[in-house]
Amino acid sequence: MAQDFTLACPLPITQRKTVVMGHGSGGRLTAQLIHDVFLPAFDNEYLRRLDDQAVFDIAGARIAFTTDSFVVTPIFFPGGDIGKLAVHGTVNDLAMSGARPLYLSSAFIMEEGLPLEELGRVTASMAEAATAAGVTIATGDTKVVNRGSADKLFITTSGVGLVPAGVNISASNARPGDAILLSGTIGDHGMAVMSVRENLEFEGAIVSDTAPLNRLVEAMLAAGEIHALRDPTRGGLATSLCEMAEASGVGVEIEAASIPVSDPVRAACEILGLDPLFVANEGKLVAFVAPESADAVLEAMRRTPEGSGAALIGHAVAAHERLVLLKTEIGGTRILDLPFSEQLPRIC
Amino acid sequence: MAQDFTLACPLPITQRKTVVMGHGSGGRLTAQLIHDVFLPAFDNEYLRRLDDQAVFDIAGARIAFTTDSFVVTPIFFPGGDIGKLAVHGTVNDLAMSGARPLYLSSAFIMEEGLPLEELGRVTASMAEAATAAGVTIATGDTKVVNRGSADKLFITTSGVGLVPAGVNISASNARPGDAILLSGTIGDHGMAVMSVRENLEFEGAIVSDTAPLNRLVEAMLAAGEIHALRDPTRGGLATSLCEMAEASGVGVEIEAASIPVSDPVRAACEILGLDPLFVANEGKLVAFVAPESADAVLEAMRRTPEGSGAALIGHAVAAHERLVLLKTEIGGTRILDLPFSEQLPRIC
Repeated sequence: MAQDFTLACPLPITQRKTVVMGHGSGGRLTAQLIHDVFLPAFDNEYLRRLDDQAVFDIAGARIAFTTDSFVVTPIFFPGGDIGKLAVHGTVNDLAMSGARPLYLSSAFIMEEGLPLEELGRVTASMAEAATAAGVTIATGDTKVVNRGSADKLFITTSGVGLVPAGVNISASNARPGDAILLSGTIGDHGMAVMSVRENLEFEGAIVSDTAPLNRLVEAMLAAGEIHALRDPTRGGLATSLCEMAEASGVGVEIEAASIPVSDPVRAACEILGLDPLFVANEGKLVAFVAPESADAVLEAMRRTPEGSGAALIGHAVAAHERLVLLKTEIGGTRILDLPFSEQLPRIC
Repeated sequence: MAQDFTLACPLPITQRKTVVMGHGSGGRLTAQLIHDVFLPAFDNEYLRRLDDQAVFDIAGARIAFTTDSFVVTPIFFPGGDIGKLAVHGTVNDLAMSGARPLYLSSAFIMEEGLPLEELGRVTASMAEAATAAGVTIATGDTKVVNRGSADKLFITTSGVGLVPAGVNISASNARPGDAILLSGTIGDHGMAVMSVRENLEFEGAIVSDTAPLNRLVEAMLAAGEIHALRDPTRGGLATSLCEMAEASGVGVEIEAASIPVSDPVRAACEILGLDPLFVANEGKLVAFVAPESADAVLEAMRRTPEGSGAALIGHAVAAHERLVLLKTEIGGTRILDLPFSEQLPRIC
């Protein structure tokens, strides 16, 4: 088994010649594409950190900057829509650096024939989400492509925020001993989209958890010392933990029994043969917190609406560096690894 | 005729029910979409300026922020490719506020089946363009959609830059008396893309002018007082002038004989029945400059590679507010207005 552990890092170049769906999964194929194509081309200190945002100084201001394209299908789903997702996704990527999200841009790629009524619902939803999160959509762009050259609507949001003095949060800053806190149940977003996409019977019982996490992060920062934060979107909680273990060079041990999963999500995952650990979330975060701060931060999380279901799910350890171990509910141990490709394509 | 002049503003809502190609043209239909859908939803002081970038203060730093999606087809064309265009487009939108472009993000939406070799050529081209412009691609995102749900590759770049102290440039800052300077020939980009798209005989003779304009703007700022800047991309020079006249509440008078157009572009436009004034550029700018600075700024432009063909093409006037008049080469006068839709779809 020992040599398998090295596979926690991205695989070397394969002989693949074209882009496949898995390259957008957030899993091993995405990591491979980043390592083989984007990092060599654009190589710089910001990209090398492999965080979901860059942080740099401009004229003395410490600025966080992030971007994400949203291609979810369908564009409306239980609990949200592509516009709300785009605003929350960018707000959350900024918040994961400890930044206060301030300004967003939104670029629309529309397919000819998109009903204007649907576009209006999406923009209204984005406006509502921006107001709720306290950010301003300050600039944008619109492009239209011929029928059949896009799938209704793609939205790319970027954002800038201000990192407060003294805050230094990165996926690479986790340390052995850190408590691992999760802000609530997992798998809700992915299963909500699946339910409507596949017309499954549990439709309605499961709604996306899409939510802005900046106020939760503010409460956490005020309560204690946060080392690393990530919102487990594509690839789910397992992928985020693998990436953070890899980036920080720590081992991770989590307990399955401590990880909150709602009954409908658990049931839906069982029916579809999916593992909720790998299903996308859009309103949850996982945090590596200094051990002496763990209790205070967990309490602070639970006092916020977005963190009311927060739980301690495990610890970072010095042993089995870069490896994520799950203690199962029946007492076994399972290695969690980046998924090769995706369980659910176009989930965000 | 008099009441026609009010049509320089976007038309009121039509009964249109779906997005049409013209909504992405940069012309009247795009303006209508922005006025009817995006502005009412996202209304704020930054969007209301209708500049191609937002400028705001963060912790004392004056930051410019912009975004653009690129959907040009084909993705490789004479003189450039979608990646180079994306980097230059964002660099230029920042530069048009007088900002020094610093950091870019790039979000890729890829169609399943995109050859990795093509992706590699695009990223190499982006890296080269970023280095040449002195900007860092600091963060990014990759998404993949099923075959037939996108057209090969869409790239959305966003960027942040620093606006130097004392610089206050906006499309709404033009004043009567300002000299209007154009940095070189028009129509090259649009006709280069058309040539390869339509397999026209003049292919090769016309190459895209795609280029970063930040150094040109720096030279202009050092030489004199610049009021308004725009890079005439979608919709061409005529559209930019209409937008600036509208935003600033000034009249514009330009002379056709002063506007540089290369012989191959002029010939190609004649064959295709296109007006070069409305054809996209990707490496040109038009500037409204304080009259006492005009000579010095024009000279400074001509000393740069990007501005070597710069020309004085006209003036802003107090008369016929918001209206752009072209003095034709045979001594007539023509009103330039926003095109209703596009001459050339998916040009950027």
